[in-house]
Amino acid sequence: MHDDRFARLPEPPYYAVIFSSRRRGDAAGGYAEAATRMEELVATQPGFLGAESARDGEGFGITTAYFDSEASIKAWREHAEHASTRQRGREAWYSQYAVRVAKVERAYGWERADA
Amino acid sequence: MHDDRFARLPEPPYYAVIFSSRRRGDAAGGYAEAATRMEELVATQPGFLGAESARDGEGFGITTAYFDSEASIKAWREHAEHASTRQRGREAWYSQYAVRVAKVERAYGWERADA
Repeated sequence: MHDDRFARLPEPPYYAVIFSSRRRGDAAGGYAEAATRMEELVATQPGFLGAESARDGEGFGITTAYFDSEASIKAWREHAEHASTRQRGREAWYSQYAVRVAKVERAYGWERADA
Repeated sequence: MHDDRFARLPEPPYYAVIFSSRRRGDAAGGYAEAATRMEELVATQPGFLGAESARDGEGFGITTAYFDSEASIKAWREHAEHASTRQRGREAWYSQYAVRVAKVERAYGWERADA
């Protein structure tokens, strides 16, 4: 059975946007709704391949989003609703974030045989 | 004040190993100790630049480790204690994992001014 927390990706090469963030202890409301909306929206973007995300109890999280090309990443970055949500993130939800854009050159995985 | 959950990295280019994993619900003991030991060990590896990690309450986690070159990644992969811990991970702790190796081409970040 596929564990749907893992993205199903094609063979490399493709591109990754690695987004690490710390939520503020006093984060304003609306975060969960915005995060869900961004997940839905990115999935409709041309060239989007998949994403994975984890956030721990201390509010530190990593999201990786995969795209077919730098052009697709640029288009997503310039999407108006995404841009306004990022602005809201800086104002209301995050204390810090880091973005690294990378070209995935190889990939492999492992799954328990009796899972 | 620096938030030490974020890696302090040099200017790109450098390499990222993106490790996503799901811990088994019935994971055997020793995981936390092994994870701490691997964090300490990787930090001593030539070419290691930094790492970030988050795991959520459902046992899904993402760790990103950054290195100066593919050669440094290969040396870490071949480190005997790391290899035996990976084997233990497959036997006892994980139901699934995925590894993507990528070349970071650009990076940027943001930090709250009054943090």
